[in-house]
Amino acid sequence: MTKQEEEGERAAAWFQDLRDRICATFEAIEAEFDPASVPARFERRPWQRPGGGGGVISLMRGRVFEKVGVNVSTVHGSFAPEFAKAIPGAAEDPAFWASGISLVAHMTNPHVPPVHMNTRHIVTTKRWFGGGADLNSIFPVDEDTADFHAALKGACDKFDPGRYDRYKAWADEYFFIPHRGEPRGVGGIFYDYLEDDFDQDFAFTREVGLAFLDVYPRIVRRRMHQPWTEQDRQVQQVKRGRYVEFNLVYDRGTQFGLKTGGNPEAVLMSLPPSAAWP
Amino acid sequence: MTKQEEEGERAAAWFQDLRDRICATFEAIEAEFDPASVPARFERRPWQRPGGGGGVISLMRGRVFEKVGVNVSTVHGSFAPEFAKAIPGAAEDPAFWASGISLVAHMTNPHVPPVHMNTRHIVTTKRWFGGGADLNSIFPVDEDTADFHAALKGACDKFDPGRYDRYKAWADEYFFIPHRGEPRGVGGIFYDYLEDDFDQDFAFTREVGLAFLDVYPRIVRRRMHQPWTEQDRQVQQVKRGRYVEFNLVYDRGTQFGLKTGGNPEAVLMSLPPSAAWP
Repeated sequence: MTKQEEEGERAAAWFQDLRDRICATFEAIEAEFDPASVPARFERRPWQRPGGGGGVISLMRGRVFEKVGVNVSTVHGSFAPEFAKAIPGAAEDPAFWASGISLVAHMTNPHVPPVHMNTRHIVTTKRWFGGGADLNSIFPVDEDTADFHAALKGACDKFDPGRYDRYKAWADEYFFIPHRGEPRGVGGIFYDYLEDDFDQDFAFTREVGLAFLDVYPRIVRRRMHQPWTEQDRQVQQVKRGRYVEFNLVYDRGTQFGLKTGGNPEAVLMSLPPSAAWP
Repeated sequence: MTKQEEEGERAAAWFQDLRDRICATFEAIEAEFDPASVPARFERRPWQRPGGGGGVISLMRGRVFEKVGVNVSTVHGSFAPEFAKAIPGAAEDPAFWASGISLVAHMTNPHVPPVHMNTRHIVTTKRWFGGGADLNSIFPVDEDTADFHAALKGACDKFDPGRYDRYKAWADEYFFIPHRGEPRGVGGIFYDYLEDDFDQDFAFTREVGLAFLDVYPRIVRRRMHQPWTEQDRQVQQVKRGRYVEFNLVYDRGTQFGLKTGGNPEAVLMSLPPSAAWP
């Protein structure tokens, strides 16, 4: 095994480890929410990619987490010519290896903000880390927004002082719905093509995952017992519709996954359990 | 006014006339469904296109038609360079004029098939008619499918004997969801770039509209009192999700509308009142 392969294995192992910690924490929240009932658990479905590799979708339908999916995948193969052009280092050689974790949580209670988190390591003739996390509050609360950003800033600040501002600005640009002229949520961070140094970049990617694991459960526990009305729920359904619009029309990962023959169940795991365009 | 402009005006007037006839028929169905209650009516919202022209969205939320939108628009302007390349006759000169009618009906009762119909006349340095209609049955019934196709075949057969087979095949190819490996519905017809002769092509386009107006109300009246269960409704919600996937990921008109700064309310009028990805 080359050094590069060994490093890829370490990244893939981390994504699985992070998945396990997140799933355990989310299951604990379900158990805390209503100690008298049998709590929901994640179900795991492994999938194979015809071109090489595969992944595991972990999906839970709970009382707090109406639908939460965590997909971990490690895939390899060769990019189709029309995609190779757009991907760093793939024009020279279309072979790729990629591993990552992707998480989307749609919450029952409209006052508990939905969330997205994704980090990945991609290898072509170049190799890099990318990822991000954004909070998609339906009824934004300053405390939640501030905590979420503070956690991600904390991860960034361990590496360089300008990183948070750059990655926050990138998220503001990326998680925006142009045809609606509105942001998808209250932001977070987005980064890509991070290829300064494997050890540093991998350490940063781990910090992003740990920051998410620290802050999001705190926000959920803070809001999950807050009362909500049918009217709040309807606002939530419309906001979920906007999320669908963003993911299907603009999201790079979704477009890429659907148009390269990705597993549609894994690619579309991000879609909400229900949505409305009244 | 040039002959071409006068012909464009005639096409635009027809789209409005067809809209009026369809809306009146759909309102009559709402009144028939429950004679004891106040029937739903279409509401009309005019909109202006910043680049030139505009349209009117007619939207009804009824008991039979859970959400039905009919948009008539007549717009003109200049295609952005990245679109001009893909549009016949626009590479030479990006100026365009376009008029059309677009209709999508999402039905309350899962046994009443949703439907889409659109016809349009577009003028660049070339000019042509295009359009189509497809039935999106959730629980397909042979009688409905056969009647829908027979009506469209009747329209086609007045012009040339091979037309229906060609346009049906085009619909089968177009109204298909590649990432799901499944058709959007039970088909219909699709045609584009029809520029044989204005009078003939316009006459055909009128026939398509009249065929729709003949057959779809018959199907609705036949099915609207059929009992349905919550389970049927859930199947409907999932099928609506597939419709959303098709429209946002693949539909040319939607992609074009959203990415050229079209009125999002008009472009996304096609989205269902609710959908599910359980």
